[in-house]
Amino acid sequence: MTASVPGELPVVFEDPVYRDAVVDLLGAIAYGEISAFERLAEDGKLAPTLEDKVEIAGMATVQFSRVGPLHDRIRALGADPFAAMAPFREALDLFHEHTAPSDWYESLVKAFVGDGLADDFYREIAAYLDPDTRDLVVASVDDAASSAFVVDRVRAAIAADHRLGGRLALWGRRLMGEALTQAQRVAADRDALSALLAGGVDRPGLDLAAIGRMFTRLTDRHAERMAELGLSA
Amino acid sequence: MTASVPGELPVVFEDPVYRDAVVDLLGAIAYGEISAFERLAEDGKLAPTLEDKVEIAGMATVQFSRVGPLHDRIRALGADPFAAMAPFREALDLFHEHTAPSDWYESLVKAFVGDGLADDFYREIAAYLDPDTRDLVVASVDDAASSAFVVDRVRAAIAADHRLGGRLALWGRRLMGEALTQAQRVAADRDALSALLAGGVDRPGLDLAAIGRMFTRLTDRHAERMAELGLSA
Repeated sequence: MTASVPGELPVVFEDPVYRDAVVDLLGAIAYGEISAFERLAEDGKLAPTLEDKVEIAGMATVQFSRVGPLHDRIRALGADPFAAMAPFREALDLFHEHTAPSDWYESLVKAFVGDGLADDFYREIAAYLDPDTRDLVVASVDDAASSAFVVDRVRAAIAADHRLGGRLALWGRRLMGEALTQAQRVAADRDALSALLAGGVDRPGLDLAAIGRMFTRLTDRHAERMAELGLSA
Repeated sequence: MTASVPGELPVVFEDPVYRDAVVDLLGAIAYGEISAFERLAEDGKLAPTLEDKVEIAGMATVQFSRVGPLHDRIRALGADPFAAMAPFREALDLFHEHTAPSDWYESLVKAFVGDGLADDFYREIAAYLDPDTRDLVVASVDDAASSAFVVDRVRAAIAADHRLGGRLALWGRRLMGEALTQAQRVAADRDALSALLAGGVDRPGLDLAAIGRMFTRLTDRHAERMAELGLSA
């Protein structure tokens, strides 16, 4: 029985381990949106035309617009949003530092493949959450609008220059590798977040085999996204 | 008789000089919002805390959110938004190039004083527009939400370091000077926009004395804003 009254928290939040895990998760997503905003706004400098710059600035503002609701929810859970985000800053900043795009097309591939991977991961986790939190997480990672623009631009550029396809395929693999490296750091550091995946007395969790299957789904979807761009994964 | 039916343009747009002037004005404001977005997002790097960075990123996204409605209106007037913005890129880019903030407080003062000055100017022009365009322009420049944050941060910093007040006062004067320089370039280049202020057969305009009074109002409000920050103008 986890039915919730508006303004009241579902019973599941009486478990402090669960509450801490949700605060962690929302903090990680919120800081992810802030750093995605910063990076996309920065990448606008690489845009070849003002039209492209406006497109990527629009993607940046969509990311930022999700921060407010996540912060509100963290506050409703009795935590401070900035304290909740703090543990994830280093890993996310390092991810971006290690994957600074060297040109416009690397930045488009990063926006599509990197954010897509993170979004898939959060959607996987969302399955283990109470309905309110799940809806908030799913709303925070839905990014369909920008995909057509990125796919269109990247495919046109590869058609015009085939060597670019080889370089961007390597770039996609590097993004995946760096994302996994930083995700492992976070998993090792944040017991609450790991406990969420492992489950609790009243909550289903993932055993090792299930984690393996989740990982397979994430890499499959990564390969699909690369293929959509016309790149080999 | 300039009453408008939704979806139809007011009769005043039958005058091609007026239409061109409005397209020019909306193009200038739209590019101003885009370049304000870029600059505020960039200034986020100077923010001393993540809280400050989130505040300025929020200000950046508010600026960008106004671009869409301005572009829609330019299209409704039968023009291309990117062509409409093109004539104003050089002056606005030069303004930002010549007033790149060297620290966080210069960027806050620029956001408050520079945008405030531009907004006042557009509000002055709005008085000479048809009601629909006037409402759109006024909605595009209303920036009250961010003011309290900037005033609070700048006043606290000046209280802690009085030399900062002297430096920021000079900075405010430089912003005003550079804004006037670029505004004069635009006025000299863009006949349609100047014609808007000069009026037409059926439209009231400004004579030299009225332009002088407008200039006095703009400098008075600039001084008020500086005083609000605790700075001499």
